[in-house]
Amino acid sequence: MHDLIIIGGGPGGYLAAERAGHAGLDVVLFEKNKLGGVCLNEGCIPSKTLLNSAKVFEHAAHGEVFGVTSENAQIDQKKVIARKNKVVRILVAGVKAAMKKHNVTVIADRAVITGKVAGGYKVEAEGKTYETKAIIIATGSDALVPPIPGAREGLEAGYVLTNREILDLDVIPETMTIVGGGVIGLEMASYFQTVGTKVTVVEMLDHIAGATDREISNLLLKNYEKKGITFHLGCKVTGIEKGRVLYEQDGEQKSVEAEYTLLSIGRRANTNLIGLESIGVYTERGAIVTDEQGLTNVPNVYAVGDVNGRCMLAHAAYREAEVAVSTILGKKDMMRYNAVPSVIYTNPEVASVGFSEEELIEKGMAYKKQVTPMSYSGRYQAETDKGDGICKLLVDPETNRLLGVHLLGSYASEIILAAGTFIETEMTVDDIREVVFAHPTVSEVLREAVFQLE
Amino acid sequence: MHDLIIIGGGPGGYLAAERAGHAGLDVVLFEKNKLGGVCLNEGCIPSKTLLNSAKVFEHAAHGEVFGVTSENAQIDQKKVIARKNKVVRILVAGVKAAMKKHNVTVIADRAVITGKVAGGYKVEAEGKTYETKAIIIATGSDALVPPIPGAREGLEAGYVLTNREILDLDVIPETMTIVGGGVIGLEMASYFQTVGTKVTVVEMLDHIAGATDREISNLLLKNYEKKGITFHLGCKVTGIEKGRVLYEQDGEQKSVEAEYTLLSIGRRANTNLIGLESIGVYTERGAIVTDEQGLTNVPNVYAVGDVNGRCMLAHAAYREAEVAVSTILGKKDMMRYNAVPSVIYTNPEVASVGFSEEELIEKGMAYKKQVTPMSYSGRYQAETDKGDGICKLLVDPETNRLLGVHLLGSYASEIILAAGTFIETEMTVDDIREVVFAHPTVSEVLREAVFQLE
Repeated sequence: MHDLIIIGGGPGGYLAAERAGHAGLDVVLFEKNKLGGVCLNEGCIPSKTLLNSAKVFEHAAHGEVFGVTSENAQIDQKKVIARKNKVVRILVAGVKAAMKKHNVTVIADRAVITGKVAGGYKVEAEGKTYETKAIIIATGSDALVPPIPGAREGLEAGYVLTNREILDLDVIPETMTIVGGGVIGLEMASYFQTVGTKVTVVEMLDHIAGATDREISNLLLKNYEKKGITFHLGCKVTGIEKGRVLYEQDGEQKSVEAEYTLLSIGRRANTNLIGLESIGVYTERGAIVTDEQGLTNVPNVYAVGDVNGRCMLAHAAYREAEVAVSTILGKKDMMRYNAVPSVIYTNPEVASVGFSEEELIEKGMAYKKQVTPMSYSGRYQAETDKGDGICKLLVDPETNRLLGVHLLGSYASEIILAAGTFIETEMTVDDIREVVFAHPTVSEVLREAVFQLE
Repeated sequence: MHDLIIIGGGPGGYLAAERAGHAGLDVVLFEKNKLGGVCLNEGCIPSKTLLNSAKVFEHAAHGEVFGVTSENAQIDQKKVIARKNKVVRILVAGVKAAMKKHNVTVIADRAVITGKVAGGYKVEAEGKTYETKAIIIATGSDALVPPIPGAREGLEAGYVLTNREILDLDVIPETMTIVGGGVIGLEMASYFQTVGTKVTVVEMLDHIAGATDREISNLLLKNYEKKGITFHLGCKVTGIEKGRVLYEQDGEQKSVEAEYTLLSIGRRANTNLIGLESIGVYTERGAIVTDEQGLTNVPNVYAVGDVNGRCMLAHAAYREAEVAVSTILGKKDMMRYNAVPSVIYTNPEVASVGFSEEELIEKGMAYKKQVTPMSYSGRYQAETDKGDGICKLLVDPETNRLLGVHLLGSYASEIILAAGTFIETEMTVDDIREVVFAHPTVSEVLREAVFQLE
């Protein structure tokens, strides 16, 4: 009987395996596709590879303001995709090596939980039965394909794409319509618009970027529009055809040209076909219900990452995986979601941690607010042309601790770690004022914002 | 009688003025040159503007690996300098505006302390006498011009430059020799080599980058050499002529071609001509001696920034200025130097906070060490070609707190804030393990390094 079976080899699964193997547990990990999961193979990493090429292209094509000129700047989408594949291969190999180093048995097959045994559970894969004391379910999520007329046909024909297919698209289309203005949709919109595609985003809500603080998402929208991306907000897509997308705006039928259409309306937890019912794992609205240790309603059965529906971010999965393994090892640990950062890797970047202003209003929580332009940072001025980046702080007026930090501007993705640490360690505004910030950095805008707080 | 006179309008001076003015003190600030001091006018900000243009140029000229090509990539040094001047103008205007907002009287003249009066001191400028209860001396430092034969003549003739002149050089020389491989020298070496100059660095020590952790500076050296910069370490410059620099290596006389020569061997605190002797301010090895509040041996007379010789970094000056103002206001505050970051803004970037390994060895302090390649970070892989960046942690084996963090690689400059916060808040390794790091970011290498620590 194994100590631990992990179903799914994405960020939640492989990190759990690494930590548990490191601690000396006998671990078996099942992955039916590729180690690394969606994040590594068709999500975070591939998209960042593309976005980096877009940044390089932007510099080559539009460097005049910084004194740099060149002629005939080109981006070769085939090379971009080839490099992306290489990066993914290297990182998948890294995950494989980590599994080996920590003595994790990896089995390349779908696993199905088939029932309880004395002191544990049984799982089937490759026609064999495995017994284990504990299970971590980390089966992730899949892109939602909405019931829009023409969507399925388009997917089959290849002119409709999800996050998976778009990262292998090795041409730069003339036109692209993106259904859904969440993070994935926006990152791809930013990429393709930068490299020459005419991009249109159709979003059902009246704003982009999902739960992002509205002041930030509004500013982001302006930046994208300046780039040339067209947005149709508050619009419902009613059909997808070869070459165009039909949508409804204020009751009126409209359409937009679309050589390709990207579906990015959300993701659905993968709870089917893994045998949850065989041991009675409880789900709610399509996701496995877990407590703060990642434990399901069934003893010694945990669920981490997208499949528990709590926070569909790879790094939340990482930390949930660690908490689950700690709990299995008898160490006290718990998952806290108040300092989980989120990032949009476009130009400009957006990064947030903690509550948005809308969430605070909804919860009826008191707050002080400070919005400071990034142009207070000398480095931001030195590196950015006409940037309108901001740093928004939301502060508890009683404890003087940060409730939320929202950044739009360069390096936001890397600065957010410090902001998250301020929240995680419950530093007060006065504590933060004593931190020495390197000069000149963009992160100094946090310092300035903290100083400007009344 | 004024509450506070500040002599010098660089980072230490203007920030002290801002904070003191904000607190309601009657403040007069004297600046004989430009507000913003060396940092803003001929240091940190100008050099970062140049280095940003170099990064853009590198992308335009060498983007192939990322799928980007262009022809005839050019950098127009005149435009780069013009943009630098514009950025500096904007930021100097920002400092001016901050002075006005906080009711600081700014007087554009050299100020000299002339003696004591009842309850304070007197200072002369513009032929007038000003009386004040307290003084903050923030006169900064000047580039050292070494007594090398030919150096003075070269400066006068214009083919020898200091940090001031090089930032106005509006041509790209064929060859440049840089005397001194410290931070300023390295940043300029990196800039000019990138834009097409053949750069040679002659350094007296057997390593570059001054007090930087040796493992980092050695790796940095390799990176620069790969870029094509030539280094002559352990060499003494013996003469500068038009067109070449003479130096001695292992007792042998050698020379290197140099259309221009940059002197960057260090800086000297500006303690002369400010009347220190009139009130008996104590100096040691050319710098004003201060305590942890920035107080000199003379009551109510403080010295912040380069002039106190403690840490010649703008952000140390900022914090020292705040501590001095807090003390003047009767608030308990003290300067801590254990979490003052330092950054080298070349490609790759270097950032450090806390002790280097050499310092720990010298002090006889016990430590554990972890060196983790940046290639553990998916983002680093996605954005970097054949990068050899590292994250080095030095940890107190008893308390499990960080003693030093040393980064070489992209975004190091912005990530170091989090590392400094870990040290400042005395987080243990276990505390850091509970922080959620956004994925994929380069800062995740900190997380990996902390995990790999035994």
